[in-house]
Amino acid sequence: MAIIVQKYGGSSVGTPEKIKNVAKSVVNKVKSGNKLVVVVSAMGDTTDNLIALAKKITDNPDKRELDALLSTGEMKSCALLAMAIKALGYDAVSYTAYQIRIKTSGQYGKSLIDDIDEDKIKKALDKGKVVIAAGFQGINHEGDVTTLGRGGSDTTAVAIAVKLNGTCEIYTDVDGIYSVDPREYKDAKKLDEIDYEEMLELSSLGAQVMHSRSIELAQKYNIPVYVGLSNSDIRGTIIREVDDMNLESKPVTGLATSDEDVAITVRNIDNDINIISNLFEKVADKKINVDMISQTAPIDNKVNVSFTIPKDDLKECLDILKSYSNNEVKIDIDEDITKFSIVGIGMKTTSGVVAKMFKLFRENDIAVKMITTSEIRITCAINQKDKIKTINVIAREFNL
Amino acid sequence: MAIIVQKYGGSSVGTPEKIKNVAKSVVNKVKSGNKLVVVVSAMGDTTDNLIALAKKITDNPDKRELDALLSTGEMKSCALLAMAIKALGYDAVSYTAYQIRIKTSGQYGKSLIDDIDEDKIKKALDKGKVVIAAGFQGINHEGDVTTLGRGGSDTTAVAIAVKLNGTCEIYTDVDGIYSVDPREYKDAKKLDEIDYEEMLELSSLGAQVMHSRSIELAQKYNIPVYVGLSNSDIRGTIIREVDDMNLESKPVTGLATSDEDVAITVRNIDNDINIISNLFEKVADKKINVDMISQTAPIDNKVNVSFTIPKDDLKECLDILKSYSNNEVKIDIDEDITKFSIVGIGMKTTSGVVAKMFKLFRENDIAVKMITTSEIRITCAINQKDKIKTINVIAREFNL
Repeated sequence: MAIIVQKYGGSSVGTPEKIKNVAKSVVNKVKSGNKLVVVVSAMGDTTDNLIALAKKITDNPDKRELDALLSTGEMKSCALLAMAIKALGYDAVSYTAYQIRIKTSGQYGKSLIDDIDEDKIKKALDKGKVVIAAGFQGINHEGDVTTLGRGGSDTTAVAIAVKLNGTCEIYTDVDGIYSVDPREYKDAKKLDEIDYEEMLELSSLGAQVMHSRSIELAQKYNIPVYVGLSNSDIRGTIIREVDDMNLESKPVTGLATSDEDVAITVRNIDNDINIISNLFEKVADKKINVDMISQTAPIDNKVNVSFTIPKDDLKECLDILKSYSNNEVKIDIDEDITKFSIVGIGMKTTSGVVAKMFKLFRENDIAVKMITTSEIRITCAINQKDKIKTINVIAREFNL
Repeated sequence: MAIIVQKYGGSSVGTPEKIKNVAKSVVNKVKSGNKLVVVVSAMGDTTDNLIALAKKITDNPDKRELDALLSTGEMKSCALLAMAIKALGYDAVSYTAYQIRIKTSGQYGKSLIDDIDEDKIKKALDKGKVVIAAGFQGINHEGDVTTLGRGGSDTTAVAIAVKLNGTCEIYTDVDGIYSVDPREYKDAKKLDEIDYEEMLELSSLGAQVMHSRSIELAQKYNIPVYVGLSNSDIRGTIIREVDDMNLESKPVTGLATSDEDVAITVRNIDNDINIISNLFEKVADKKINVDMISQTAPIDNKVNVSFTIPKDDLKECLDILKSYSNNEVKIDIDEDITKFSIVGIGMKTTSGVVAKMFKLFRENDIAVKMITTSEIRITCAINQKDKIKTINVIAREFNL
């Protein structure tokens, strides 16, 4: 008997009617002879509404208590789904993080799952019950309720699949993973499958279909993850380890863009590794996430250092940089950037992808402001006005 | 340092603004040098709204899952109150039933508290934290979430006060316990104090200020319980063991009425203890709560048996009685009754209360349909039209 761990997102359980539909889907899989664990998110906008409620109490809610508050959203939808399945004549039981000991560590609001007590889940499955587990939440070593961060229910589902050696199905409001965001490129192709690493790169680049940590976890334990619509015949995407052989003909799998960053350039700073690393340490201390970094060759032992940060952190970052600016050293800000990335594990074995990309940029008059690369990804900062043109040129060339 | 266990009802924490007011009251008591544990109910209509949500899933929600669902209401208000106290610069921590191991047994929806792990609460108090505990909920021996029934947060508060050897304050939307419901008798007197047993009788008779089990528990461990308004100088009522000495001059402490019952009479049934006890067993099997029972003297070895039951259970009860009715035995129903009770531990030592009451009934033309008595209570079934007159006559005579 196969064990399937399904996860339903907030929009899939947004109303009592939708919860009843999920119950029907679940029961259908049970009828086909599977053992099911179902992880649910909070209904619809519940999490946002709870945050708004906390903000009415205080502008800066205590983080332990905020996690305790938010965790109630998933408990509600769990209990309701269990009721709905029982009302269809099938046995079901809801479990909170406490009940199946989803142990976490790390900070409130972004805790990491250390372990799950799979015995209680297995016993319930062996008794023929559908197990409904609260996503997004855990219990830390002090016994406090914690949450895993936005999208954390994906990670709960994958973690349970790991512990039960099952397969994982993530049901969401998109019908799969696309090579390019379909809202930005209408001919975007849906992928039948994608490698864990590619998916990880795309997730961290703004393709917000899945919680990045859930993909890392699936990759680590080699758990295949299906992503798609529930109650639908439309085939979604399987995230798994993809055989390199299939990929030689397609070096680039996907493309992602983000307009959420700003580029900062520190001009004419001394080319002294202590000064420059000290600058980045101060930025890191404020938990500001620096992404692309580039440095020009020194002239008169002075260099220009550019880097991108999230727009939201600009003010805080400029406060840090103030102490570095003087008559010589100037701080430039460029808010007009789009981060444009192409991803593909085929790049490992296919040479010339960068060259091809630059040729296309040159032919189409697309200016590149910064560039960084990893083994399976190339990211450029371009002007925002060039975004759509770039997507079209690159997607067409690489058949995305 | 005194330990005070306070309980705030749903209307006291109905909005973020009200929660902030409760936080201020709590902080004031902390400033005066007390250690505080605060038990909260769910905000406003939360519990009713959650029940309505469950009913949208199924007409008959699974009881385990309904308890799991309802328990989230108190978790929410707990976390919000802890945030509000922290925002005022005082340390606080919220605990669910799971975290302080409020162990329960019995049925879902009306579980009984077996034990509470007071160590975790004491440790937090010793660190200078205000402890906010979720009322109304517990965990049974299978590790399931349970609830204690409507008003169960009172019992949570008293139970914690017992374990910590503290005093208990119940804050609600009435300013104390009255000898008569002030909505029915405008001259009703508020009581400075009332004995546990009197309060128990009044509670079970329809004076719904407090959860009956909380009073039983307070009585068993001799914990005084204050009932009143929060944030108010108006003095409430203390429920405690009242010295009989004070009471000789006042045999009757309070009066309660209920229109929620119906009287059933089975006429001309054989005066056979087996038949009659079998009838009541069948009624009890359906969990129908029989209150007043009276039986006429036998004529030709036939008797009339009358008893009252809650109106809600009438249909089910009649289904049972069908098998007893025939050409001889008839079932009469009287929906026009008010249960009228007077309560006072002074009755134990004062004779003639019944006689005085009957004299007043006779003089005022009040018909008594049934009567039952206990050591500290007399209950009559009267016609509903006589209710207000009876309240006035009796309240005036006994100075209530």
